[in-house]
Amino acid sequence: MFALGVDPGLSRCGYGAVVRERSGLRAVAAGVIRTPPDQPVGERLAALLAELRSLLAELGPDVVAVERVLFQANARTAMAVGQASGVALVAAAERGCPVAQYSPNEVKQAVVGYGSASKPQVQRMVQALLGLDERPRQPDTADALALAVCHLSGAPLRAAVAAKTGVAP
Amino acid sequence: MFALGVDPGLSRCGYGAVVRERSGLRAVAAGVIRTPPDQPVGERLAALLAELRSLLAELGPDVVAVERVLFQANARTAMAVGQASGVALVAAAERGCPVAQYSPNEVKQAVVGYGSASKPQVQRMVQALLGLDERPRQPDTADALALAVCHLSGAPLRAAVAAKTGVAP
Repeated sequence: MFALGVDPGLSRCGYGAVVRERSGLRAVAAGVIRTPPDQPVGERLAALLAELRSLLAELGPDVVAVERVLFQANARTAMAVGQASGVALVAAAERGCPVAQYSPNEVKQAVVGYGSASKPQVQRMVQALLGLDERPRQPDTADALALAVCHLSGAPLRAAVAAKTGVAP
Repeated sequence: MFALGVDPGLSRCGYGAVVRERSGLRAVAAGVIRTPPDQPVGERLAALLAELRSLLAELGPDVVAVERVLFQANARTAMAVGQASGVALVAAAERGCPVAQYSPNEVKQAVVGYGSASKPQVQRMVQALLGLDERPRQPDTADALALAVCHLSGAPLRAAVAAKTGVAP
């Protein structure tokens, strides 16, 4: 099972690809897609869509785990994040790739063990779980990897339930 | 000058195309794009993108006027509207079509004359300004036509300013 985590954003969109092997979880790719702030929003979103398409074509994940946007932040940021998340969902849907959405709290709960974990805690746990030589410094990258880990850590249970019940995970 | 107004939404996305001629404003097309609520969000957004692409290819507007989303409504609706607006901006950008964004208040101000106008007032003014035989019943359609009217009514002034100052309208 191979999951691509996406932490949507217009200025910075984090991504992190994680594969689950018999020996455990392994990070395959991680980074940040940036779009130039001086361009019109539409062009930036179109550029983000093109980048995400390339990434999906290159990596071919089984599932895309996207952060569920919550509108508690300021309205301007939330707007851009909502638009970017829409673009991420479109990129996945165009490839027929299933999407799972997780709130920041669900991700922290799955990765660190409690929902109000700090950014550094998430970064350290991502490093430990993926056996990385160093902590993923950029929060967007760490969050994206954490999304993939969150999905993969829950996936076996969901698959088992699906096999029993006939309901897709 | 030919403007396509888009009132973004996931369940219902209104559109209205208006052309400015010497004799005044004329509605060319209007309607609502719907996506099935039982499908995953990504597929619905991808379907919306495909529909908007067809619409832009068919109509070939000079500009797309999109409602600027404000996050004062409930979080779930705002999220879907933000994602749908992102898709609309992408569809326009992919064609190299300029986008103008207006808040609901700016639209009401331009069309009715004051920012806190009611939906029926907007519908009546859209009917009057476009010389329609009947009121556009669906609020999404009326709002989309109003967005196009809002852009076209301000466009000559902006173009004149641009010609004087060298700044694009």
